[in-house]
Amino acid sequence: FPLGRRLEKPRQQGLTMIIDKGLGLMETKDILNVCGQYIDFFKLGFGTPALYAPEVLEEKIHLVRSFDIEIYPGGTFFEVAILQDKIEEYLYLARSIGFTAVEVSDGTINLPSELREKVISRAADLGLKVLTEVGKKNGKHYPVQYLVEQIRRDLELGAYRVILEGRESGTNAGLYNSQGEFIHEELEELLDSIGDPRILIWEAPLKNQQEELILRFGPNVNLGNIPPHEVLALEALRVGLRADTLKSVL
Amino acid sequence: FPLGRRLEKPRQQGLTMIIDKGLGLMETKDILNVCGQYIDFFKLGFGTPALYAPEVLEEKIHLVRSFDIEIYPGGTFFEVAILQDKIEEYLYLARSIGFTAVEVSDGTINLPSELREKVISRAADLGLKVLTEVGKKNGKHYPVQYLVEQIRRDLELGAYRVILEGRESGTNAGLYNSQGEFIHEELEELLDSIGDPRILIWEAPLKNQQEELILRFGPNVNLGNIPPHEVLALEALRVGLRADTLKSVL
Amino acid sequence: FPLGRRLEKPRQQGLTMIIDKGLGLMETKDILNVCGQYIDFFKLGFGTPALYAPEVLEEKIHLVRSFDIEIYPGGTFFEVAILQDKIEEYLYLARSIGFTAVEVSDGTINLPSELREKVISRAADLGLKVLTEVGKKNGKHYPVQYLVEQIRRDLELGAYRVILEGRESGTNAGLYNSQGEFIHEELEELLDSIGDPRILIWEAPLKNQQEELILRFGPNVNLGNIPPHEVLALEALRVGLRADTLKSVL
Repeated sequence: FPLGRRLEKPRQQGLTMIIDKGLGLMETKDILNVCGQYIDFFKLGFGTPALYAPEVLEEKIHLVRSFDIEIYPGGTFFEVAILQDKIEEYLYLARSIGFTAVEVSDGTINLPSELREKVISRAADLGLKVLTEVGKKNGKHYPVQYLVEQIRRDLELGAYRVILEGRESGTNAGLYNSQGEFIHEELEELLDSIGDPRILIWEAPLKNQQEELILRFGPNVNLGNIPPHEVLALEALRVGLRADTLKSVL
Repeated sequence: FPLGRRLEKPRQQGLTMIIDKGLGLMETKDILNVCGQYIDFFKLGFGTPALYAPEVLEEKIHLVRSFDIEIYPGGTFFEVAILQDKIEEYLYLARSIGFTAVEVSDGTINLPSELREKVISRAADLGLKVLTEVGKKNGKHYPVQYLVEQIRRDLELGAYRVILEGRESGTNAGLYNSQGEFIHEELEELLDSIGDPRILIWEAPLKNQQEELILRFGPNVNLGNIPPHEVLALEALRVGLRADTLKSVL
Repeated sequence: FPLGRRLEKPRQQGLTMIIDKGLGLMETKDILNVCGQYIDFFKLGFGTPALYAPEVLEEKIHLVRSFDIEIYPGGTFFEVAILQDKIEEYLYLARSIGFTAVEVSDGTINLPSELREKVISRAADLGLKVLTEVGKKNGKHYPVQYLVEQIRRDLELGAYRVILEGRESGTNAGLYNSQGEFIHEELEELLDSIGDPRILIWEAPLKNQQEELILRFGPNVNLGNIPPHEVLALEALRVGLRADTLKSVL
């Protein structure tokens, strides 16, 4: 035990990103004590960072960082900053209160390429790791080639990884249909075009999605939007210690 | 930040009622430390109050009240008291152990108007806030006009707010179909008849329900049966710090 | 209160088995303080025991046992031991680190009758309570009579109870269809053949499953794969303190 070969932290592949919807401080600590070594990115989902008392937020960030986990605010927060034309303030503030990464997304807003480029490089200059997100815009479903272009461009601009949108629900976003299943034609088309799938973080909150990705890309695929209480179950799935993937490691 | 205008506690609108299914004491405290300011009513769901050790129940009630949150036992408990003809004892007991509100429902039992009236006024006399519930009875689906009459009558009898049943699941109850979607014809008929929707608390455990209600009635709609771990995510939804409602506040 | 007659611990019927997917130590303690008396078996799901730091696992086991609850590793772990031909080591190790029961399953592996028999009796010799599991194998759907034979054989071999597979999801396993509903023809056929349903533990993670089993077999039916945060809600359902079963105890 374990069967599947997992990379150790700090790792560049096999990343697990969790989405936090407002865990208390004790619970956060409790979870990290059990599975901190299996978490690489900790996202404070949606705009929740704005809803904490300042000292609670500060302590939470401090706590997560003490387990060598990158922490960043959800993309909605970034989009509001863009809308309010306060991106410089946003990046400074994020860094000053301890965030180590930012998500650049345009799910709701319109983000011209020029500004996107400027933001990515500015964030990188400030020492923040940049995750960009593609695959959703106002409910519109974009053609795969559009996603592919976005992915290439973001990586060229200096993004650390590109997140493929899956939402918290795992449905009706990115390459998922309303049942949370992959639209396989689109998946194949994407993979044909991007070449190396390791540049992506796949938002995959549902078990069937995690299973399919692990069976296809192996235990060290990058997965995101994992619910905090599912991290150990996911890790079991990764290494084959769960019925659904056990056969694959035999 | 934040974008949507939220009322401060103690508020009469924009109420959030959560359903607790048996949180431990530490977790309760942990959650309240993070989002106590966003919770107005704390329901100990179903008949769970009877299943705690007395000292645990007492401490839990004390804890919740220390955050200026009303606390009350789920309606099933009330219905059992009616069945056992112990309503006076029930109200006294509820008050003596620290509950500050009660729910009056008749989902399973038959509650004659006269008794309903007596209970509501008796509870109010004892200083308990009365929430009544409409929209379910033995799985039967009642016509909207029946709900409207119940709502009017309960408010006349002194109910603080009327809860529109959504169950814990958000399906097959009140105005929700088996998929948890609003039956829109009925929703419109209800709204046409009752006039002011602020007299209601909408049980809305599912995100799509919360989203629809917020987009329609604004950030200060009264919502209930919110899972404790979803309070911060709901608050983000209310104020527009979540992709689904961000557009609405622009 | 309560209405339904529940047996006290240690009980032989009315067992509740929960599936743990990686609760932290504080949360475990917190939950057990509230509802430890309602839990009989604590399963560390999948192969998660291998993913804890040794001292955390040890403390968790110690904690659970201090509430007089049997604790055991999920069946996947056992199957890996079989595959690696380390069953003797597995049983010794399980006992030495404090597990009090084991699950014998063959969901993924091939387990010849002879070996199954040997393992069950060996585990019993070592003082471990043996739970066997039937109802799943590599996604194949077996005829009911096959399940019946397995159940009879396992009991003869010394199994304490036989678990009817329901998976964590409650779908597509055992007697459940893809919607998590009982395939009623098969259920009736099984019940006709086995006679006494009290020899079974029904994995029933979904509320509709719990409800149907309680309404059919009473409050003291044996239920498994209960999510830890649902224990108190289940107990309310058992004793009739929840709308769905209240009528049944009137």
